[in-house]
Amino acid sequence: MASRQKILLLGATGETGASILNGLLASNQFDVEILVRPSSAEKPAVQEIKALGVALRVVDITAPEQELAPALAGIDIIISAIGPHDLLQQKTLVRAAKSAGVKRFVPCAFITVAPPKGVMLLRDDKEEIYNEIKRLEVPYTVIDVGFWHQISIPPLPSGRIDYALMMAEAVIHGGGNAPNLLTDLRDIGRFVARIVADDRTLNRYVYTWSDVLSENEIFDLVEEVSGEKIERKYETAQQIEKRLDDALAALSLDPNDPAKRIQVYVVQYMYSKYIRGDNQPRYAKYLGYLDARELYPDLKPVSFRDCFVEVLEGKGKRPYY
Amino acid sequence: MASRQKILLLGATGETGASILNGLLASNQFDVEILVRPSSAEKPAVQEIKALGVALRVVDITAPEQELAPALAGIDIIISAIGPHDLLQQKTLVRAAKSAGVKRFVPCAFITVAPPKGVMLLRDDKEEIYNEIKRLEVPYTVIDVGFWHQISIPPLPSGRIDYALMMAEAVIHGGGNAPNLLTDLRDIGRFVARIVADDRTLNRYVYTWSDVLSENEIFDLVEEVSGEKIERKYETAQQIEKRLDDALAALSLDPNDPAKRIQVYVVQYMYSKYIRGDNQPRYAKYLGYLDARELYPDLKPVSFRDCFVEVLEGKGKRPYY
Repeated sequence: MASRQKILLLGATGETGASILNGLLASNQFDVEILVRPSSAEKPAVQEIKALGVALRVVDITAPEQELAPALAGIDIIISAIGPHDLLQQKTLVRAAKSAGVKRFVPCAFITVAPPKGVMLLRDDKEEIYNEIKRLEVPYTVIDVGFWHQISIPPLPSGRIDYALMMAEAVIHGGGNAPNLLTDLRDIGRFVARIVADDRTLNRYVYTWSDVLSENEIFDLVEEVSGEKIERKYETAQQIEKRLDDALAALSLDPNDPAKRIQVYVVQYMYSKYIRGDNQPRYAKYLGYLDARELYPDLKPVSFRDCFVEVLEGKGKRPYY
Repeated sequence: MASRQKILLLGATGETGASILNGLLASNQFDVEILVRPSSAEKPAVQEIKALGVALRVVDITAPEQELAPALAGIDIIISAIGPHDLLQQKTLVRAAKSAGVKRFVPCAFITVAPPKGVMLLRDDKEEIYNEIKRLEVPYTVIDVGFWHQISIPPLPSGRIDYALMMAEAVIHGGGNAPNLLTDLRDIGRFVARIVADDRTLNRYVYTWSDVLSENEIFDLVEEVSGEKIERKYETAQQIEKRLDDALAALSLDPNDPAKRIQVYVVQYMYSKYIRGDNQPRYAKYLGYLDARELYPDLKPVSFRDCFVEVLEGKGKRPYY
């Protein structure tokens, strides 16, 4: 047991963090602890994790580096699944990880494949942390996951799967032909457990996926499996660009409003995925990412089809609820 | 001859550009043309290159993309050795290269290994171009070369090599023990000719070197070969940090003064190379660079020792003069 790597997970109560926690525990390969802010230590979601036998480290990550570093004693790997508004709070954590001798820092990535700068604000913030990591020569792995199956399913006319969906309308963006990397939310943790145990992924970017599907292919598949015909609405590239301009203008009037920021994130996801076509294997490889499916050919992820069948059978779960 | 790659070189009259031009011509593998601004077309340095049989493309690179793209017709590879103050002018050139179907864009890198952001202003500007390239998915290679032999030689007490030196004083920075990647200025082009013909370097970063030497090792070698004893002066990390703060403060008062910018570049080079210790193989590999010596084991670069012996023998040449 002494040789098991000790992992500290940040953000374990979020959707991505929960998947990672499950994947790490299921692998039975690591000693897992979770980092919890003092204000969250008593929350039911945290107490549920504690009840699984996972140790808590209650740490204020906004504390100065010299306070933070001792709190990381004995940790081999830090995995951060911090929320989108707190990304820059990872900066001190990176410095503390450096002085604590952490052997691998997995910063909060876990989004679609996109260029380093200037297309997605969300990625721009993440990139600031990647740059801090590189300045400090901290060993790292960046893991992106494409888009989740769970939020890529369009509603059916019957309404019978609305209970599990994020998407309110069946809209196709641009021509609907851009291929997109998709990963089942529940598989993120399975991939992460493999990736962080693998020397080949040290100081590299990795992307995970089960399917590469365009919106048109998703709609076709959903119609075929459900037997329902979806009335397809289309949003053009121009309409998305207009929405993006509007969202950016609204944010610029009130740069600290989280709701306006989220709106920019949402539209930039669409723009990047469907208009630019960033979230696909060819571009990921161009950007230097490794393909997790090539690294772990034995890992059989849940396909989009199987995930959709579960949802049809009433076994789905709406994320964030 | 039809299958020879056509290379367009920008900045051919500069020190790095001249080395690249020589290396490309000596390889006898490429059709080489040089990009010349209208204001430079009649300059003697340009006319000398023309006299070698190198075709000129007179192009205003500050023109809009749609004017620039046709000027790149038929070009397979663009190599930019543009001056440090004009780096951001490469942005439109990248866009034009994309629409002209250029197969490889080598942006102006050719400096020491350093982190992407926040340590060297000069690198920060280059990074903006790298990010533009990545946003556009233009095939690229970034080539860094460490520091040149020619500007790493300290003066001797006798003054007999002053004719060839940039360095006015024999100063050692920090402890003088940081290992540094060094390349002979004349070898840059030899390496570049190999790198741009190599599929393995596509969409990658590569560093070149002949020696990895600390300042103390350089001083020892120079004393041994010359038989002269150098009085070593030391500048501490604190003194360099103070100089850096001063240079940044001066620049902030007058952000468009090229002389103040150059002063920041000079001090940041020292800080990065000697205090942070960025310019070494370990860190380059951490950052994802390929090692040109591993790629081309048959290429025997000019060693620092051989370069110094030439200088001692009166066969040196001061760069930039």
